[in-house]
Amino acid sequence: MFPQFILQKKEVPLLFICTICFSFLLSAQRPVDYVNPFIGTSNFGATNPGAIAPRGMVSISPFNVAGKKNKLEKDSQWLSNPYVYENEFLTGFSHVNLSGVGCPDLGVIITMPTVGNLETNHLKYGTTYKDEIAKAGYYSTVLDKSKVKVETTATTRAGISRYHFPAGKANILVNLGLGLTNEQGGMIKTVSSTEIEGFRTVGSFCYYKPEETYPVYFVVKVDIESDEFGVWKKTRKETGVEAQWMGYNGKERFYKNYYKEVVGDSIGGYFSYNFDKPTKVEVKVGVSYISIENARENLQKEIADSSFLEVYHKTQLEWNRLLSKISVEGGTKDDKTVFYTALYHTLIHPNTLNDTNGEYPKMGTRETLKTEGTRFTVFSFWDTYRNLHSLMSLVYPDQQLNMVNSMLAIYDESGWLPKWELNSTETTTMVGDPAGIVLADTYLRGIRNFDVKKAYEAMIKSADQLYENPLRPGIKNYIEKGYLTTSDGGSVSTTQEYNISDFAIAQLAKTLGKKEDEKRFRERSISYRKLFDKDYKLLRPKNDDGSWHHPFNPTDGANFAKNVGFIEGNSWQYSFMVSHDTQGLIKLMGGRKSFTNQLQKVFSERHFDMANEPDIAYPYLFNFVKGEEWRTQNMVEALRKSYFKNAPYGLPGNDDTGTMSAWVIFSMLGIYPVVPADPIYTVSTPVFDKITIELDPKFYNGRVLIIEKEGVGSIKEILLNGEKHKSFFINHLDLVNGNNKLKFILE
Amino acid sequence: MFPQFILQKKEVPLLFICTICFSFLLSAQRPVDYVNPFIGTSNFGATNPGAIAPRGMVSISPFNVAGKKNKLEKDSQWLSNPYVYENEFLTGFSHVNLSGVGCPDLGVIITMPTVGNLETNHLKYGTTYKDEIAKAGYYSTVLDKSKVKVETTATTRAGISRYHFPAGKANILVNLGLGLTNEQGGMIKTVSSTEIEGFRTVGSFCYYKPEETYPVYFVVKVDIESDEFGVWKKTRKETGVEAQWMGYNGKERFYKNYYKEVVGDSIGGYFSYNFDKPTKVEVKVGVSYISIENARENLQKEIADSSFLEVYHKTQLEWNRLLSKISVEGGTKDDKTVFYTALYHTLIHPNTLNDTNGEYPKMGTRETLKTEGTRFTVFSFWDTYRNLHSLMSLVYPDQQLNMVNSMLAIYDESGWLPKWELNSTETTTMVGDPAGIVLADTYLRGIRNFDVKKAYEAMIKSADQLYENPLRPGIKNYIEKGYLTTSDGGSVSTTQEYNISDFAIAQLAKTLGKKEDEKRFRERSISYRKLFDKDYKLLRPKNDDGSWHHPFNPTDGANFAKNVGFIEGNSWQYSFMVSHDTQGLIKLMGGRKSFTNQLQKVFSERHFDMANEPDIAYPYLFNFVKGEEWRTQNMVEALRKSYFKNAPYGLPGNDDTGTMSAWVIFSMLGIYPVVPADPIYTVSTPVFDKITIELDPKFYNGRVLIIEKEGVGSIKEILLNGEKHKSFFINHLDLVNGNNKLKFILE
Repeated sequence: MFPQFILQKKEVPLLFICTICFSFLLSAQRPVDYVNPFIGTSNFGATNPGAIAPRGMVSISPFNVAGKKNKLEKDSQWLSNPYVYENEFLTGFSHVNLSGVGCPDLGVIITMPTVGNLETNHLKYGTTYKDEIAKAGYYSTVLDKSKVKVETTATTRAGISRYHFPAGKANILVNLGLGLTNEQGGMIKTVSSTEIEGFRTVGSFCYYKPEETYPVYFVVKVDIESDEFGVWKKTRKETGVEAQWMGYNGKERFYKNYYKEVVGDSIGGYFSYNFDKPTKVEVKVGVSYISIENARENLQKEIADSSFLEVYHKTQLEWNRLLSKISVEGGTKDDKTVFYTALYHTLIHPNTLNDTNGEYPKMGTRETLKTEGTRFTVFSFWDTYRNLHSLMSLVYPDQQLNMVNSMLAIYDESGWLPKWELNSTETTTMVGDPAGIVLADTYLRGIRNFDVKKAYEAMIKSADQLYENPLRPGIKNYIEKGYLTTSDGGSVSTTQEYNISDFAIAQLAKTLGKKEDEKRFRERSISYRKLFDKDYKLLRPKNDDGSWHHPFNPTDGANFAKNVGFIEGNSWQYSFMVSHDTQGLIKLMGGRKSFTNQLQKVFSERHFDMANEPDIAYPYLFNFVKGEEWRTQNMVEALRKSYFKNAPYGLPGNDDTGTMSAWVIFSMLGIYPVVPADPIYTVSTPVFDKITIELDPKFYNGRVLIIEKEGVGSIKEILLNGEKHKSFFINHLDLVNGNNKLKFILE
Repeated sequence: MFPQFILQKKEVPLLFICTICFSFLLSAQRPVDYVNPFIGTSNFGATNPGAIAPRGMVSISPFNVAGKKNKLEKDSQWLSNPYVYENEFLTGFSHVNLSGVGCPDLGVIITMPTVGNLETNHLKYGTTYKDEIAKAGYYSTVLDKSKVKVETTATTRAGISRYHFPAGKANILVNLGLGLTNEQGGMIKTVSSTEIEGFRTVGSFCYYKPEETYPVYFVVKVDIESDEFGVWKKTRKETGVEAQWMGYNGKERFYKNYYKEVVGDSIGGYFSYNFDKPTKVEVKVGVSYISIENARENLQKEIADSSFLEVYHKTQLEWNRLLSKISVEGGTKDDKTVFYTALYHTLIHPNTLNDTNGEYPKMGTRETLKTEGTRFTVFSFWDTYRNLHSLMSLVYPDQQLNMVNSMLAIYDESGWLPKWELNSTETTTMVGDPAGIVLADTYLRGIRNFDVKKAYEAMIKSADQLYENPLRPGIKNYIEKGYLTTSDGGSVSTTQEYNISDFAIAQLAKTLGKKEDEKRFRERSISYRKLFDKDYKLLRPKNDDGSWHHPFNPTDGANFAKNVGFIEGNSWQYSFMVSHDTQGLIKLMGGRKSFTNQLQKVFSERHFDMANEPDIAYPYLFNFVKGEEWRTQNMVEALRKSYFKNAPYGLPGNDDTGTMSAWVIFSMLGIYPVVPADPIYTVSTPVFDKITIELDPKFYNGRVLIIEKEGVGSIKEILLNGEKHKSFFINHLDLVNGNNKLKFILE
């Protein structure tokens, strides 16, 4: 009876099912109904099942990583998510969260319903929970300790929760001490018996730039006047002589009915009630990165007096509208669930940064700027340049255009394109100079109504500036020698990344008619070849004097171990990451056979890591060798089935802001953008019988792209609009202009 | 040449004298010129030499109690002042300060000029200093390390400093981490290259009520655009597993050109310069207890574009106007310095709480309220009820009326009269129920245009409410037995204080025609008699069963030692503190001779403590015994000469928000309000030959009160308007209505 795609931990009482899921049962076949937000909440997928609107600034995630009672405890290890499926001790619901990233940040503005006397220590009020339900834009659970049922949903910049309290004493806590971020400090202030405002400091993502912390502002409104309200603060313990007079030293203090700002590391606010009957309280939270006033305005403009169900309904419809851009026929229910959940995950980040009035913080200084369109944030380009933005260009080109414009705004504000931008801070996480690849890729895919002159200028700047270049450390060696050396960090990986960026410049230069630039950067883009060690048929780090680095073991560096020459990987996992020059690599390796053998070894000898980006295009590289395409088809299917599942552990690792999800989406569609900044797809077997991708008429001449398959087995024939297509590569522009049908005949 | 009343630590260069003191030399005889703000800055007087306007919310005090290099270091002992004369290590200039109180609070919003590279650790940028000058409304010094001369002056709600920088690198720091208060936490935010705003948490005065902390808001503006600006934060040190990735763990961070809020315990802001020639920078600071906006408005309304010298000139004139309400002839320069500095000290607290727009924080909750007149704060009534408010009623009745109205506002806001009110928190420091005494005293002295009905209601409330009565703990025993018992705290002292408060009610009841109340409270007002132990001829604590408490040593409890039955004192220091029933006490003690002997013993056997309030009226009590008045005259003169000097140690101890100063003022005038809530003065020998007190025509019929003396020695005859006045007691109303002349003929 109960839709299977809603994954539950425990049994659900029948009444519960009936009341909640009525509307669901009527419309169980919509794309939105296939979303299972629990996918990726285990196995370090780092997604969370919280309620969120598409590209929302706000999400309301259950927060269960800070209890000292959990297996995966935020302070016991590197843990980058507010929720872990296996954990059991829940201490609230955080209102700003990152999804699928590799460092802990945000996970703050935590609210929590409790019953009985006011208790603000999360170790005491925390609880186990049951009856979890997560859907696109909806999450609910029942807290064991209080018997309170919690439901959450969200708009872009505001969240709304519904707490079902039993009769008796009840409290709603706003805990600013607790958080996933390791940054501390906030401000809280009671506005009235139904409203609290404040901000929480977050940032210094991945611990790189301690000064890149910043406030996230909020307003919390409850719809029932509280009997008592106030704030609390736990001060640091004094040790001086005066401590002897402080009976309260290091203890929690309560400020009842107090209307001024309280600041500190361990602070919070509360509303208390004494209900004579079971009562539902709706808690609305508006958020902004500009000011409390904007947070209030966001809440007012997006929720105002709407009820919980009204908000949820609207958000659910918006999810369905976006997910329905791709409709699929055939495949199992699990296939559809994996597919639409992946698509859902690609619509979380990059997310909205600007307020409803258009204001957003300037990079670095955080002065207030204003945007006409959407200013997006959370750009993890080292991950996403590989596939996510090509997917956006295909399915959501209007969003991709806004992303490009956001990138150019970041260039205007900071003087540099983003590398890993987070809420207007440049975290400088990971390596390479990936933004330009996305700019070129987008332009070459036909999304051209942005300032390409500025984009090109920005790309050239980071490619050529020899000194004080934050995007390309080691650039001097790179330009002089063609490669970074062991004196630089991750010299081989970084050389490869710069090669790909330079390839992107060459590609764009060609389109823009800049022949000299094209020549120069095309030459630069293959300099990785100097790091090719014929003996190993692999890339290998070189020292400053040009000699090979010793010792060298191409398997060192797997599983994120530190390794000379490579970032988060080893030589096997990087050596083929030059898809723009695969023909060149084939030559280096001694021809097609040798290349194929070497590539096959990656899989056969288990060097392949599905959980990290450098090698995720590898399975598609067999398509570069005529006659070996079957390997791609087999390998893609095997990897997909092995790593992508309708289960909490259903992602291979960090989703990397949708990169893993984009991989499985393309892999299920049967096309993959194997060469970033080259507007082509290479193919494999689609999972579904028929796929219809709605095309945006503002960008493409085509109305739809239909992908079909016929038969079972390997690809026998490819038909494009009924014509035989001999290549395993297809130009993007050939698919989106006109109403195209791509058909795979299998055998 | 240089006016002696400006006390200096070290020699002053001639040029310095000439440039600074020119205006002084022209007008050295004005009352304002006799003020020496260094009086009380040693010997725990707890005053500070900072620049302040009369009853200013803001004062700019040198801050030299936090360096670990000082003798009296704030964290090494109980120290309640931002400045100690003997200390040598200065770390800035604090903009809100208390004067002459017994617990550390405020002493925050600390600015500091430095030179060279930016250094924000006060232990490193702190410095010795020289060439101190302090005047009413003015302070200056030269910092040894930087050679920067600092001058400060203030309006009611804003301060202005002038920093004389040499050529080269210079910085202006706003350090929110440092402070006298033991409260922590604040917020700082850069507004522009010339402006910083924020707030600092202060409060929990005397450690009684940890939840009574609150923000003091500020805006800092510099008049020269900085070359660089920013904020800093030192975070607490993380100890978890993630600390290993935090290279910055526990270190200072700098946020350059950053425009959002930074909160924390150890934060600050800075403006940096590189001057090509010596440059003066004026730093203006506006303060408010309501909001940053109000702080900015206060600064704008009170200083705006005025220069340092314009502000100082205006403040100096205002000081002179108020101090000139009493003019004196005769006496030494030191006498005049002691006198006018004491008067200056009585015009510091209570001070202004409301902003220029009338807004001030409500008691406890700190909602914004608005006042028409001045809302005063810093009411240390256990001290000030004894003399300060009678002085205000005589010389500054308009101010006293505003104070009474502030007291009634506090009653309206909190349901209770204040006890020790500080910036809209009730600190509940010390004992008794003293506010009503002030209300009755003020009314009986003829200042009647306040809501006396409400005042009376408030007095009755705390006198009669048996339960949950914050002003009169132990009231049940007090009403049932007539006294508190050893089960209560400070049972004898508190009984006496309640007696005095009840006497005040009886006095007011009589005036209001409430005969029954009068009778009831007059009876209650002498219940201390039950604690009179004939064997000792002193008051002694009783146990719950009515038996005397054992052991009993009437000398125990001196020097603030803890003692059963008495608060901050012993039986000798308390037993005579029933001046409203001195005749009753004389009887109890076995007649006039016995009383006189016993009282004389207090002095002869050195039980007297000039530094604490309970016994400060003692020297005047000899006047109650005919023929013994010479003892009062001798003793008052001896105490005055011994304890009140033109020197940093020129106060006997804590000034107690002007109470000690009021004692010496009255004692120098030759009149003393010996019975609180009885509008009489008792007399002693005036110090000056002629004293002219200007009377406020809005309150009194008289235009002036003249007090003269003729001859030397003891008082032979007292003439009131030429008529022989046989008593050593004079009714206040007989002095203020008509142009009266009180003349002492000495022999």
